[in-house]
Amino acid sequence: MQVQLNPTGVLNLLSQLEVDLLAQSTTDRYRLFRNCALAVLNVGSHTDSSAEIYDRFQDFDIRLVARERGIKIELTNPPETAFVDGDIIRGIHEHIFSVIRDILFICQKHQAMVEPDPKAITHMVFDMLRNADAMPVNTDPNMIVCWGGHSINEIEYKYTKEVGYQLGLRGLNICTGCGPGAMKGPMKGATIGHAKQRVDNPRYLGLTEPSIIAAEPPNPIVNELVILPDIEKRLEAFVRVAHGIIIFPGGAGTAEELLYLLGILLHPENQKQQLPVILTGPAQSKDYFDEIVSFVRDTLGEQALDKFEVIIDDPALVASKLKAQMQDVRDYRRQQGDAYYFNWTLRIEPEFQAPFAPTHENMASLNLHLEQPKQQLAANLRRAFSGIVAGNVKDEGIRAIKQHGVFELSGDPELMRKMDTLLSAFVAQGRMKLPGSTYIPCYTIKT
Amino acid sequence: MQVQLNPTGVLNLLSQLEVDLLAQSTTDRYRLFRNCALAVLNVGSHTDSSAEIYDRFQDFDIRLVARERGIKIELTNPPETAFVDGDIIRGIHEHIFSVIRDILFICQKHQAMVEPDPKAITHMVFDMLRNADAMPVNTDPNMIVCWGGHSINEIEYKYTKEVGYQLGLRGLNICTGCGPGAMKGPMKGATIGHAKQRVDNPRYLGLTEPSIIAAEPPNPIVNELVILPDIEKRLEAFVRVAHGIIIFPGGAGTAEELLYLLGILLHPENQKQQLPVILTGPAQSKDYFDEIVSFVRDTLGEQALDKFEVIIDDPALVASKLKAQMQDVRDYRRQQGDAYYFNWTLRIEPEFQAPFAPTHENMASLNLHLEQPKQQLAANLRRAFSGIVAGNVKDEGIRAIKQHGVFELSGDPELMRKMDTLLSAFVAQGRMKLPGSTYIPCYTIKT
Amino acid sequence: MQVQLNPTGVLNLLSQLEVDLLAQSTTDRYRLFRNCALAVLNVGSHTDSSAEIYDRFQDFDIRLVARERGIKIELTNPPETAFVDGDIIRGIHEHIFSVIRDILFICQKHQAMVEPDPKAITHMVFDMLRNADAMPVNTDPNMIVCWGGHSINEIEYKYTKEVGYQLGLRGLNICTGCGPGAMKGPMKGATIGHAKQRVDNPRYLGLTEPSIIAAEPPNPIVNELVILPDIEKRLEAFVRVAHGIIIFPGGAGTAEELLYLLGILLHPENQKQQLPVILTGPAQSKDYFDEIVSFVRDTLGEQALDKFEVIIDDPALVASKLKAQMQDVRDYRRQQGDAYYFNWTLRIEPEFQAPFAPTHENMASLNLHLEQPKQQLAANLRRAFSGIVAGNVKDEGIRAIKQHGVFELSGDPELMRKMDTLLSAFVAQGRMKLPGSTYIPCYTIKT
Amino acid sequence: MQVQLNPTGVLNLLSQLEVDLLAQSTTDRYRLFRNCALAVLNVGSHTDSSAEIYDRFQDFDIRLVARERGIKIELTNPPETAFVDGDIIRGIHEHIFSVIRDILFICQKHQAMVEPDPKAITHMVFDMLRNADAMPVNTDPNMIVCWGGHSINEIEYKYTKEVGYQLGLRGLNICTGCGPGAMKGPMKGATIGHAKQRVDNPRYLGLTEPSIIAAEPPNPIVNELVILPDIEKRLEAFVRVAHGIIIFPGGAGTAEELLYLLGILLHPENQKQQLPVILTGPAQSKDYFDEIVSFVRDTLGEQALDKFEVIIDDPALVASKLKAQMQDVRDYRRQQGDAYYFNWTLRIEPEFQAPFAPTHENMASLNLHLEQPKQQLAANLRRAFSGIVAGNVKDEGIRAIKQHGVFELSGDPELMRKMDTLLSAFVAQGRMKLPGSTYIPCYTIKT
Repeated sequence: MQVQLNPTGVLNLLSQLEVDLLAQSTTDRYRLFRNCALAVLNVGSHTDSSAEIYDRFQDFDIRLVARERGIKIELTNPPETAFVDGDIIRGIHEHIFSVIRDILFICQKHQAMVEPDPKAITHMVFDMLRNADAMPVNTDPNMIVCWGGHSINEIEYKYTKEVGYQLGLRGLNICTGCGPGAMKGPMKGATIGHAKQRVDNPRYLGLTEPSIIAAEPPNPIVNELVILPDIEKRLEAFVRVAHGIIIFPGGAGTAEELLYLLGILLHPENQKQQLPVILTGPAQSKDYFDEIVSFVRDTLGEQALDKFEVIIDDPALVASKLKAQMQDVRDYRRQQGDAYYFNWTLRIEPEFQAPFAPTHENMASLNLHLEQPKQQLAANLRRAFSGIVAGNVKDEGIRAIKQHGVFELSGDPELMRKMDTLLSAFVAQGRMKLPGSTYIPCYTIKT
Repeated sequence: MQVQLNPTGVLNLLSQLEVDLLAQSTTDRYRLFRNCALAVLNVGSHTDSSAEIYDRFQDFDIRLVARERGIKIELTNPPETAFVDGDIIRGIHEHIFSVIRDILFICQKHQAMVEPDPKAITHMVFDMLRNADAMPVNTDPNMIVCWGGHSINEIEYKYTKEVGYQLGLRGLNICTGCGPGAMKGPMKGATIGHAKQRVDNPRYLGLTEPSIIAAEPPNPIVNELVILPDIEKRLEAFVRVAHGIIIFPGGAGTAEELLYLLGILLHPENQKQQLPVILTGPAQSKDYFDEIVSFVRDTLGEQALDKFEVIIDDPALVASKLKAQMQDVRDYRRQQGDAYYFNWTLRIEPEFQAPFAPTHENMASLNLHLEQPKQQLAANLRRAFSGIVAGNVKDEGIRAIKQHGVFELSGDPELMRKMDTLLSAFVAQGRMKLPGSTYIPCYTIKT
Repeated sequence: MQVQLNPTGVLNLLSQLEVDLLAQSTTDRYRLFRNCALAVLNVGSHTDSSAEIYDRFQDFDIRLVARERGIKIELTNPPETAFVDGDIIRGIHEHIFSVIRDILFICQKHQAMVEPDPKAITHMVFDMLRNADAMPVNTDPNMIVCWGGHSINEIEYKYTKEVGYQLGLRGLNICTGCGPGAMKGPMKGATIGHAKQRVDNPRYLGLTEPSIIAAEPPNPIVNELVILPDIEKRLEAFVRVAHGIIIFPGGAGTAEELLYLLGILLHPENQKQQLPVILTGPAQSKDYFDEIVSFVRDTLGEQALDKFEVIIDDPALVASKLKAQMQDVRDYRRQQGDAYYFNWTLRIEPEFQAPFAPTHENMASLNLHLEQPKQQLAANLRRAFSGIVAGNVKDEGIRAIKQHGVFELSGDPELMRKMDTLLSAFVAQGRMKLPGSTYIPCYTIKT
Repeated sequence: MQVQLNPTGVLNLLSQLEVDLLAQSTTDRYRLFRNCALAVLNVGSHTDSSAEIYDRFQDFDIRLVARERGIKIELTNPPETAFVDGDIIRGIHEHIFSVIRDILFICQKHQAMVEPDPKAITHMVFDMLRNADAMPVNTDPNMIVCWGGHSINEIEYKYTKEVGYQLGLRGLNICTGCGPGAMKGPMKGATIGHAKQRVDNPRYLGLTEPSIIAAEPPNPIVNELVILPDIEKRLEAFVRVAHGIIIFPGGAGTAEELLYLLGILLHPENQKQQLPVILTGPAQSKDYFDEIVSFVRDTLGEQALDKFEVIIDDPALVASKLKAQMQDVRDYRRQQGDAYYFNWTLRIEPEFQAPFAPTHENMASLNLHLEQPKQQLAANLRRAFSGIVAGNVKDEGIRAIKQHGVFELSGDPELMRKMDTLLSAFVAQGRMKLPGSTYIPCYTIKT
């Protein structure tokens, strides 16, 4: 089976020089591109193991066909779920070209950056969002980033839909990491809310990165998809486009996101930042949040608790509070002379920008002691959870675990015990992997 | 609590003469208008008894405030469910003005029609759709009318959503009678499908009439709402805008719709009409359709079975078949020189156009014998079911039953037995009234 | 030569009933329709004699072809100037359908009005503008009505273009009577000004009526054409849509317009109306305006001079003043609760609304004495000039003069002398008829 | 006087990095930028001497003000003609930002190109057009490039307007070098034609370069302005965006354009190119074209005459022929798989791409002999005329002539005589400089 696709968006107009460059992609980059394209096409899939997906579609191929007038995409043996009566779903079609744009085109532009300084990293994040047309000028603050697990139970899933619905009814837009579960629910709910409110140009922004995209493929509702080059730039994109953040129940990935966020918000220069954060879930999830709260209190201290609010079982209240706070966000940005569409003034330290490679060595040598500045601790805890996500669902991580055994984490015994408690709870609640699979931990905690 | 609303759509521009006319509405018409407005505002309600709703909101009031620049609407004590953080939901706001447009404005224009001939009735249906901007020129056939019960079980409801989703994925639009159940599910599903396919101007057309609107209030997703003056014009609107029809499980109302449709399609002049009709439901509903099919075969004959197809438990197949047949509809219309947006060539006999008042007398004197032309029989059966719907959920019907006891239906014993079987099944399956209430039949069959 | 045209705008959607009605137009109405259509097609023509045009195109025919999907227009032997390489100019195409809409469709709707009261007349004017989509909601005051002669010299014509250009540079729109000369110049100029200012939806509103349309055919730049049923409704439309009025040099028609306007503005209830009026022309036209001013002072008195301003040879000042006054117009309307798009609060007395038929008898019996209320006098003078326009360029008027000789005007000797002076000046300056023809007066003044 | 302007178009969204780069412009580039901005603001000016303009506005200044949200422009003492009642004309406002985009922003991106190969030059031309949004996808061929003198007489000017009008009536768009005379006339005419045909998005593309922009400032009608870095890239842009070319009477610049075009079209690989070229003017210009034709015949040979057609005094025919040939252009492009918006397949040799610096030395050493390949000869003649344009109106050229005396051209005596004849005719006809100034030749021909 072979299918040809026409370009969309920014790829409509390419010069011959650019087409030549695209066609000459190196083997490595080509493989990355192919895998991301496959992930995007495979959206209906019911596994979160990237390795499994790549194995299953070994005969899948994607080729750029250079034409004088631009490029065409040729797919060989694509997953059938991307098609309706033989036609590719328009949303998926667009996602394929987002992959080309971000993996082949934009990354090529930025790959020369050898030793990027913080300003250059932020510029790259900005440039990728701009190139994806994901920063509307002249629009009031209305983008709510929703974080949460890809593997959540039915009650929690319905709850995320309801929250999305309430956000949509208030004209708020949704940004998620674009996988299933808590990343899909809010978008589905908001779609209905937006329809009832006749919102003309609803935005469903998906931010992902190459190593997670297969495990958490973007739902076709996502109408602005950006594939950042790594997890750190993806996290930076999240916090710079957010006007408010909701955190639903989740596993290691969600913990990573929360720690990243708190680490940044605790920076003295971000003291006055207006960025409302709400942790929320159905009544059944109360215990979950209690655990999270005490982990944060015990590690980052009381002051970290001031940075967010917990609301249990009240979707309308969550949405209503955020809506009300959009005015504060707007006032703050205006007063700072900052853009609404990108939070330039948010200070992000290099330790949160630098990519962390979750090798066994790096994981083992993480400084996990309580006696370090809170912000530093947040950065290191973030890395620890990031590594666990890699070991759970990312291709490279899974292979590394297969080869070298589980990651070893060590440090302050008290801290280790707290982490163990939290992670064990994630495992027990089935938050590490999609239901159906038995979860085998990819880490061990040396206490 | 008082709220003022600005006009929308066609009511933006009114002359002083027209505003005066609106303000001078007679008491009767005003009551009709108030009740419809209440119904539209009360969309979240969980009862299908019009009488109960009117009782509950006795202190609700709606007033037209004449302004030089047009009119404003003033609501007193409106149902709270219509509002989000104090602002009316935009979809409901539009529906209120659809009510003004259709009940006060347009009906006034047509009320002079003393003895309407068939052509004038069809013109009125057309005029009301046109005035509601519900007939897009230059659009290929894509409007699927979905009929089915307002009271269906959870499995059936999910099924209607899935069918809607599959229709939406194929770029098809939805028209329903705009109540809950099978009238809401397809629209919700299609909204998601349309979002994935980036359909710019999805249409969710709701056709209702004053006596049913309270029991089956329009979902705010409905973005084109037309309130036809009576059930017969509403049925005519359905079949003239339809490019395809889906019938989900339902009760007496759904039976009425099916019999109306078959009565028309059996007309010799409609022999070559292209209007695909599919009866469909989940696996659990198979028995229901078997009963319907045998009732149709036994009353209208084998040839009536050629007019539709039954598909069990296959939403994608339903949508895919209809999509494929849109080409035939298009070819037929083009060949006949007929419009795509309104089926002028469909022949509808006066017996299907004339309003039927479900009084005890009229119900009792219905000719329910098998020895009459099939088309006549269909018309009479349609009236019988129509009366039962009135007795079940319509304000006037409920009052009549309270006052005079149940309707008596009599006729051919064999036919009576068949009706009894069918109706008993509807009752047993909970299709007559929303769950939660015990159904007390509003009719008796004299066999 | 035969051409078929598709419908545009509001005529896209007609019911069969309406198509039948259109096709059954009475002979009289058909002739009116045909003549207006011919006028619209004959836009390049260089004569202002309606009679001559009708004579020249005797083999022209226009037929409505009823189709199930609506109507088509079939033209036989249309003037070639309406076509470019065999395709009709889009602007003219639209004008043809404006003719159908206003002559056949709308007039039919209103023809039942036997004894129209003032409110009904204003409603009709409003209804015709609304039906032509010529009243944008949510737009600030910006419509400048430009009056002036169809027969002006080259210097004056360039001046009207320059004024239009300056208006266009300030984002103001243009409304004229849509003939050549002072009615075309401002639109051409404004088109360039609008282009430089990137005005997205410039409006060039043309208001005409059946008896003048052939002598003063609408320029295809006119993108909103409304054919009011008679000169009085056309004048009412002018003053109710105007946010400001410019009067360029002109002949009897322009005098009629000025007297109509002053008659209304002198009404005590219109004392506070905000409606800036500027008389303007190039340096060479100074004498012309001096004559006009002294005629107005001598007949309507000093106070009438307060209603307008004269600006000589300064297009930028004219435009700049009007632009500045738009704010006053806006404030006044807002404060009165009046619409921006239609001046409901302007009081127009019945004597200015009632159609005046310029028969020899009516002309002879006009009360032209100075001893009558100023407003009355303005109304009668308006009628006198209106009759002279008819005798000069309108079909019926020309025929009447041919048959019965010139109109006789009599009254107060002093007034008669003043009129004579003014009219003689018009004749001497070539303002009565297009250059190239020798003007033979259609009136005599009995002093 | 100080004015601040907000960014428009692509400059709405700049990262801090980019803003910093813009602000750090070198002195040279800043001067270039300031001069271009001044040229754009000074559009009403009546001189074509760049030097004179720069002298007159010595106190003009333009500064980029960096804001977190992007940049603002601050103008000090700008020419008043750019403003209407204190507000800058929107078209000019856009042009200012075109200058920033092309001079500061884009050029910076490409300045690294040390030894550009032909492909890179073409890519740069493409990139600048793309960045200016000047290449609409999915649009049929319709762009007519109009060349001709900035100093033409009134009859010729009216003729160019009439041709523009006829092009506009046929839905064709206009591209010129954006100065006065033959570069402005077609756009003004087309604006009226487009208005009559209700063309929604008319395109008036102006292609200029820094050294000519002051002498030939872009008319504000130009709604897509691109400032290419030098005359050769501007010429390449012209021929790659053109679907047809009209050449009106002109002086040395027009001769340069014609020779460039013929040199390219004579290339064997361009044999089958579909690019209609028409030389046209009013009856009075017949002699002018006779001279041009014989100069071309005598230098480039008979075959060069096949590349164009001369039409005297028939604007409708010119437009009608071009319109008809758009189909051939389309067919050719489709058949070659080439884009409609950019002629990739047109072969342009390095000698036409390489910038020619008109120094006295370069001018003196031009190879102007008949015994060289025709294409080479065309390239050299092109350079000779290019140098004369520089000496006539460009800042640097004027200064060079002041300092070193006139350019000396020498070569084949016969060829020299022909050039002398042609140039003398240009001088005699006032085509070298705007009327009002006495033309002092900047060259001498050594025969």
